[in-house]
Amino acid sequence: MEFPSQLVERAVEEISRLPGIGKKTALRLALHLLKQPEDATFELSSALKELRENIKYCKTCHIIADTEECTCQNAYRDTSVICVVEDTPDVLAIRNTGQYNGLFHVLGGRISPMDGIGPENVKIDSLISRIKSDDQVKEVILALSATMEGDTTSFYITKLLKESGIKVTTIARGIPVGSELEFADEVTLGRSITTRTLFSQD
Amino acid sequence: MEFPSQLVERAVEEISRLPGIGKKTALRLALHLLKQPEDATFELSSALKELRENIKYCKTCHIIADTEECTCQNAYRDTSVICVVEDTPDVLAIRNTGQYNGLFHVLGGRISPMDGIGPENVKIDSLISRIKSDDQVKEVILALSATMEGDTTSFYITKLLKESGIKVTTIARGIPVGSELEFADEVTLGRSITTRTLFSQD
Repeated sequence: MEFPSQLVERAVEEISRLPGIGKKTALRLALHLLKQPEDATFELSSALKELRENIKYCKTCHIIADTEECTCQNAYRDTSVICVVEDTPDVLAIRNTGQYNGLFHVLGGRISPMDGIGPENVKIDSLISRIKSDDQVKEVILALSATMEGDTTSFYITKLLKESGIKVTTIARGIPVGSELEFADEVTLGRSITTRTLFSQD
Repeated sequence: MEFPSQLVERAVEEISRLPGIGKKTALRLALHLLKQPEDATFELSSALKELRENIKYCKTCHIIADTEECTCQNAYRDTSVICVVEDTPDVLAIRNTGQYNGLFHVLGGRISPMDGIGPENVKIDSLISRIKSDDQVKEVILALSATMEGDTTSFYITKLLKESGIKVTTIARGIPVGSELEFADEVTLGRSITTRTLFSQD
């Protein structure tokens, strides 16, 4: 694509590095910004810069936060449960359900030997030492993705916690609510039968 | 959506103002930037800021450019034809065809009484005075969109140029190349018959 201006070309180049945004969309976004008041672009530009400059990761739970002491030690939380997730969006998703009020631990990825990611590249050591130093913790919920890498990570953590006497659970795999049985894949349907629960009318 | 950080919240807010980007995509983009090296974000941020600060519009043809004298006066261009378009992306699209080597004139919109856009809100005056002050111009090609507003704008410009002796043409409307007749809409098919051209084997 031939651009009428070096400035536009550079902006398109940078915008199109973002995932899922191609050159055409990037050009549309750049031209959109040019039609908006100047402040719209300046606000966007400074929000991005400040995000990258000032973001912190909580040193306890590794959630993205504004300070190194995030709200994870909030007095209203149930400090006897830690939910282990892969990334910050998973924390938001679980919080949004309103069904969980415990602590979180963000691994920052999952064990994946194929991609060269070993246990030392994710925050598993930090999880174990956190649990060992805090005798309030009674349960660890593994909420990792239902893939080979997620399961490997779950097995690894379970093995490390075996001797500790802490209850290790995992979120239920099964038929999504509102979904028809006939469209479910065999593995999910099979697992929903082996891990069946008592029917309650609540 | 509840955010773990004010910085993330502000970035998501600003990114999601862009057209076609919702809060979820904005969050995904913000978290992507946090996983990249710092420079990626700083480059993006400064490219956007500099684009908005330093962009110019050519004072002759109103194309987005780095200086007020854009490449429109390039010696290799055919200065006897001006192609009138609505916006800068149209210029890029026409240039990319490789079928046109003349000048351009960007109106910056089209006459649309419903949206309160009159002839004085687009660069029609500038087009007329440009043509009057330059006796090299022999033809004006109207390449506006095939909508009521585009046609209104074309009629208006044609009327203003009626006495000038300049040839006013418009791009052909018809069946797109590679398209099947049976799927064409009636208006397009009708117009392709009334504006039929001599068949050549080139």
